Amino acid sequence: MSLLVVGSLGLDNVATPFDKVENALGGSATYISLAASYFSGPLYLVGVVGEDFPQKYITLLENHNIDLEGLQVVKGGKTFRWVGKYHYDLNVRDTLLTELNVFEKFDPIVPDKFKKAKFICLGNIDPALQLKVLDQMVDPQFVVGDTMNYWIEGRKDTLMELLKRVNVLIINDSEARLLAKEPNLIKAWKIIRSMGPEILIIKKGEHGALLFTDDIVFSAPAYPMEMIYDPTGAGDTFAGGFIGYLHKTQDLSAENMKRAVIYGSAMASFCVEKFSTQGLENLQYFRVHDRYREFRNLSRFDEKE
Amino acid sequence: MSLLVVGSLGLDNVATPFDKVENALGGSATYISLAASYFSGPLYLVGVVGEDFPQKYITLLENHNIDLEGLQVVKGGKTFRWVGKYHYDLNVRDTLLTELNVFEKFDPIVPDKFKKAKFICLGNIDPALQLKVLDQMVDPQFVVGDTMNYWIEGRKDTLMELLKRVNVLIINDSEARLLAKEPNLIKAWKIIRSMGPEILIIKKGEHGALLFTDDIVFSAPAYPMEMIYDPTGAGDTFAGGFIGYLHKTQDLSAENMKRAVIYGSAMASFCVEKFSTQGLENLQYFRVHDRYREFRNLSRFDEKE
Repeated sequence: MSLLVVGSLGLDNVATPFDKVENALGGSATYISLAASYFSGPLYLVGVVGEDFPQKYITLLENHNIDLEGLQVVKGGKTFRWVGKYHYDLNVRDTLLTELNVFEKFDPIVPDKFKKAKFICLGNIDPALQLKVLDQMVDPQFVVGDTMNYWIEGRKDTLMELLKRVNVLIINDSEARLLAKEPNLIKAWKIIRSMGPEILIIKKGEHGALLFTDDIVFSAPAYPMEMIYDPTGAGDTFAGGFIGYLHKTQDLSAENMKRAVIYGSAMASFCVEKFSTQGLENLQYFRVHDRYREFRNLSRFDEKE
Repeated sequence: MSLLVVGSLGLDNVATPFDKVENALGGSATYISLAASYFSGPLYLVGVVGEDFPQKYITLLENHNIDLEGLQVVKGGKTFRWVGKYHYDLNVRDTLLTELNVFEKFDPIVPDKFKKAKFICLGNIDPALQLKVLDQMVDPQFVVGDTMNYWIEGRKDTLMELLKRVNVLIINDSEARLLAKEPNLIKAWKIIRSMGPEILIIKKGEHGALLFTDDIVFSAPAYPMEMIYDPTGAGDTFAGGFIGYLHKTQDLSAENMKRAVIYGSAMASFCVEKFSTQGLENLQYFRVHDRYREFRNLSRFDEKE
């Protein structure tokens, strides 16, 4: 069994009220694969960077056992770049610049070795590219997809095609409301269910996450964090922890899906404790484990009535 | 043991996208005491209404075993009135009119019989009035207080006096941020802790509630509701269920505090299912019990790691 991740790799300039970084490692595929790497392998990455992508980031990904055979390096090309600034209230951010660069002409090619992967995580990129990757897979069995407002508004038809082939859709609350055209999240889930995904996860940032299946609703708390350094990548990291845990355990029951949501939340909490991907670079697995237990204590109440 | 509730009683005109009501029973003390009435008695109410307050509402409260000896009825006076309108997204509401009426000159007098109550719930009114009530009590042991932006901004000094004498402060997330002048809720808790309350509950509406003590943080989910008819009074109902359950069980441990938060959340979910106080008028206790269990299923994940 193996896990394929597709999405963006980028260079980010990020400023928060506490500090700033330039040319930091970013992108959805980066966060997803780093988070998933703590659970199991083999891990395959499909993406594109320019010639300016630093070798140290390649080395970092390789050190996490991420197979980069599917990473295209465009000669003379520039890597995708995002420049953002967070406000004093870290829930609010301004995107100052998005340069697609090599992503503009990206034609994802899945290496033969990757085509039999059963678990697939489609990070947030153009749904047409997500579909192109899916089309190359031999027998995908469990497809997790992410998207964003930009594609919901600008690529609705393509996105609807994609949703028919996605098992789990992971989006945030405003995206769910926009996609379903419905402010109530329970109703929104039913509308999104009819678009294809059997499972919906709604990320609510500091309010945790909701997991919907045909049989259950599960509410996961957020980890209470006194100091958030950089929220960038938290959602992608969540998705990576989620699918990484499921890929490791090979158990797609509702009960295990709940655990995967907690592992995703735990990974996201490590992500935001440091700038860029730093919180995901040198984690020891026992710390992930410990944080899982902290989530249990956070939401548990006993049965006396 | 007995439980004293002070706060507003009012007549509300409420419009939602689904329906509207006029001259409906409203006010913080109303919702608190109706919710608490499902747990234990005796229940004492201190408040004020005008001569226009309908007898049927008096009868309703009395039928819930709420002792109205402390309810002043002002001859020729008009009852407190609130007119509000909810948007399509029910998280957003406009207050169209607030008429203090008899509340303008309200001087709360606690009847002798009520003065030995040990549990006290100070509903959202002018903190000067909340203090006046506290001053009349013989030996208050457990004081729960609510407040709002209006008093945080306009009566800060009086509110700070009150907070020194409150065991549990129940406010919403925007009020917590405003009171502490801090966007991060974990930091806000520490700042509010230094103002007096040993326990802080932050209500987050559709995102549930957070309970903070010196030893624990507890995250309670919100009940996933497909149909919210009228959010009015949900926060007061939460407070009533919370203190009602604690008063019934007489157990102020952190574990029992968590249960009380869930009972408060359960009562609030019944409140918003119908207009005004209708959802709290004819509940059977087994339904409260059942909903408590549903909350457990909603947030529970098992221990396999």
